Amino acid sequence: MGSDWGGALADHMRRTAALRQVEMLLDWDRETQMPPKGAGQRAEQAAAVASALHALETDPRLPDWLAEAGANATGAAAVNVREAARVHARAIRVPAALAAALARAAVEGQTAWAAARAASDFAGFAPALARIVALQREKAACLAGDGGRYDALLDDFEPGATAAEVAAVFDRLRPELVALRRRIAGSPQRPARLAGGFPAAAQLALARRIAGVFGYDWAAGRLDVAVHPSSSGTGGDVRITTRIDEADPFQCLHATIHEVGHAVYEQGLDPALAFQPAGAHASMGVHESQSRLFENHLGRSRAFCRWLAPAMAGAFGRDLAPQAVYEAVNLVEPGFVRTEADEVHYNLHVMLRFDLERALVEGSLEVADLEAAWNQRFLADFGQPVPDARRGVLQDVHWSAGAFGYFPTYTLGTVYAAELDAAMRRDLDLDAALAAGDLAPAVAWLNARIHRLGRLLPARRLIAEAIGRDPDERALVAYLEAKFGELYRL
Amino acid sequence: MGSDWGGALADHMRRTAALRQVEMLLDWDRETQMPPKGAGQRAEQAAAVASALHALETDPRLPDWLAEAGANATGAAAVNVREAARVHARAIRVPAALAAALARAAVEGQTAWAAARAASDFAGFAPALARIVALQREKAACLAGDGGRYDALLDDFEPGATAAEVAAVFDRLRPELVALRRRIAGSPQRPARLAGGFPAAAQLALARRIAGVFGYDWAAGRLDVAVHPSSSGTGGDVRITTRIDEADPFQCLHATIHEVGHAVYEQGLDPALAFQPAGAHASMGVHESQSRLFENHLGRSRAFCRWLAPAMAGAFGRDLAPQAVYEAVNLVEPGFVRTEADEVHYNLHVMLRFDLERALVEGSLEVADLEAAWNQRFLADFGQPVPDARRGVLQDVHWSAGAFGYFPTYTLGTVYAAELDAAMRRDLDLDAALAAGDLAPAVAWLNARIHRLGRLLPARRLIAEAIGRDPDERALVAYLEAKFGELYRL
Repeated sequence: MGSDWGGALADHMRRTAALRQVEMLLDWDRETQMPPKGAGQRAEQAAAVASALHALETDPRLPDWLAEAGANATGAAAVNVREAARVHARAIRVPAALAAALARAAVEGQTAWAAARAASDFAGFAPALARIVALQREKAACLAGDGGRYDALLDDFEPGATAAEVAAVFDRLRPELVALRRRIAGSPQRPARLAGGFPAAAQLALARRIAGVFGYDWAAGRLDVAVHPSSSGTGGDVRITTRIDEADPFQCLHATIHEVGHAVYEQGLDPALAFQPAGAHASMGVHESQSRLFENHLGRSRAFCRWLAPAMAGAFGRDLAPQAVYEAVNLVEPGFVRTEADEVHYNLHVMLRFDLERALVEGSLEVADLEAAWNQRFLADFGQPVPDARRGVLQDVHWSAGAFGYFPTYTLGTVYAAELDAAMRRDLDLDAALAAGDLAPAVAWLNARIHRLGRLLPARRLIAEAIGRDPDERALVAYLEAKFGELYRL
Repeated sequence: MGSDWGGALADHMRRTAALRQVEMLLDWDRETQMPPKGAGQRAEQAAAVASALHALETDPRLPDWLAEAGANATGAAAVNVREAARVHARAIRVPAALAAALARAAVEGQTAWAAARAASDFAGFAPALARIVALQREKAACLAGDGGRYDALLDDFEPGATAAEVAAVFDRLRPELVALRRRIAGSPQRPARLAGGFPAAAQLALARRIAGVFGYDWAAGRLDVAVHPSSSGTGGDVRITTRIDEADPFQCLHATIHEVGHAVYEQGLDPALAFQPAGAHASMGVHESQSRLFENHLGRSRAFCRWLAPAMAGAFGRDLAPQAVYEAVNLVEPGFVRTEADEVHYNLHVMLRFDLERALVEGSLEVADLEAAWNQRFLADFGQPVPDARRGVLQDVHWSAGAFGYFPTYTLGTVYAAELDAAMRRDLDLDAALAAGDLAPAVAWLNARIHRLGRLLPARRLIAEAIGRDPDERALVAYLEAKFGELYRL
């Protein structure tokens, strides 16, 4: 490594990383294990851990430690110093009163959002959201320095990325997706869902089998059922959750494959860099590249459906043809909800949110006008009007939780996934491996180029090194055109 | 309350209490949910939370806050200030290097103990234990001030108690128990175990039913199977674990009742005092009084067996007479292991450990002589030689974890339990309620006198107020003589 990482700074970073793991465990436990009356205490516990983390990040000894360690640092140690300095600089730029107001507003915002969403009433959420947006603008101003305000928030999730660079990709991608969506909508081809019921226990057993096939290390994780699929934790303890719909087995199976994509990334980080900033995942975009690569490029491939169809036939006791499974798992249907969207519509959902949240942060859009802006954009991109706020502007938790700058990482990840898939297929006979249910070569390819490198390289450069050139949206467009052109005979 | 508790000190105490809850959750998760490869990270997580707690306890602003708050504090606020001051004073008296050495020695000690125990080889554990004892002596010297060194350690678990006062009770109790044990051993009466197998699922279902009967709030807790029965958490989230032996259903059922005793205490603390030192449990002795009262005085009573026998008959599909259940659940048998001991032998195990650990801390016994001292004392009190170190000096985890001063709270709790049982029976027709499976009157009696009072009174005074006089061992002796005199026709 060329690293002599150790001493007080390393201890400090180790404690910081460990407390972040504790934060994730508190969330996982809340979603899967906690009894109902534990919610109030859990909020206090999360606040106490956040407060301890803030104390670490703003420790007044850090500048001296960083200066000393930075002088001669190379390799991983240099990345550690750079990342620790970045986190420290961000932490001390946000005044304690603002940080506390942001935390409070996020808790109140999620309560207001849940009630407003249940009532499908945006006006009931608008005051809380307006408060959140005002505080996010204030936070962005504290953090921005000479840079853009939205960039300052994006940096929490995609270090080093800028809104302009993201927008350049998105602005080229959006018309391609809108056009493809229209051509599919006009196609007479109408693939069918799988009919009948799929018992929950059989779905879960098959999901466990598939997780193993995709490289999930069961000695370093576990699978539970929850309302929202998730992956949390790192290294030797990466827990995933999935959801079950007895009418549609792919909710469970492909949510599991998606989360296994995240989990295999975290399980595959370099243990020698555990508890060091350099050993963490590169960015949320890179994280999402792994989950969407697993879910879509591998899990929804024709080749994998040749393995999946007989596996499903065994699990559910009925005959299923690979082609029927392939068509059912790749249905393109207009819908209003991002988390239920197919591969063609998904990124249109994300881009809508990116443009709106950027305008909110930069001050060119106010919360009072948000619902109208959402509905107008949705009609333009999806060709149908939003039926109600619950399936429109109120559908996502992110803004109520103050996570501005998160959305674009979903589409960045999709773009990276297509690039990695194409590069991997140049090196490996992926289809033969997928049809045999042998994902080991793919996992090894990703582990060597992505997982083990952690945060040693900036996210975009990490992808560029893996694929041999700068990533852009063309691989994604080509993939979607080929796959759905064939499926819908365009 | 006469309390105007609030402000920076209250926030600080709230964070402290919340982090202690997080500590308990990390332990519970490790025992019930964590995948095997998570162990290394979990140690780092626990260390990071412990470090954050230490930072709170030694916060240099505390003396000023305490002085200001203490000036006018009454009621709960005064208890909060007193307890916070006690914890702060203890934390700053132990130098950081010693605290770190203690933590490290405990981790290394438990590893060495587990290996030595598996090999039944005390010599393999002796060096690690000698190091722990040396550090514990050092810690005791830092904390003792003008008081006794063992008292200084006992104070962590039984605030305000002294070794002399504990020893006075134990020294009167021990000959009574040795004599009773001998009389039972000489009795021709030989009650029998229940024969046959008891399926795990049926045991667990019955354990859940019994937990509800004993007042466990299922909306504020959950039951899992683990190697060691436990109760962890407080207030709205108190989780219990039990163990299952298909040959002996009472391992599961009475471990559950025991843990429900702990849990109902924590669930019944005053929510108005949540996250305040005054709102915590009074001491480990009082905690154990609740669990042993539930397990033994209620759960092993003849009256409750009238309810339990038909419940077991239903659960296991076979006829069981109440008298057969009563006799089986109260078997007195010589044994070597504390955690498997009956009511007559249990406290002899504890007293042996109390005397030995006190001698270790005070310097009149060295680790090199510990095994011989254990074996000699065991022969004297139990009338049989220790067969091996695994069932002798190596059986408990406490010393390897550095928990010196914990053991006597088990017997203090047993003494308190007998007093509370006798007092409760003066107020309530407990036998009629137990036979009907109606524990609500007993739980309400305890809640008003013990649970809701938290730490408002010192432990011994809390018990004295509940029973109307100072507690002593006579109620326990009378209870054991009456119960086992009748069972064994002495």
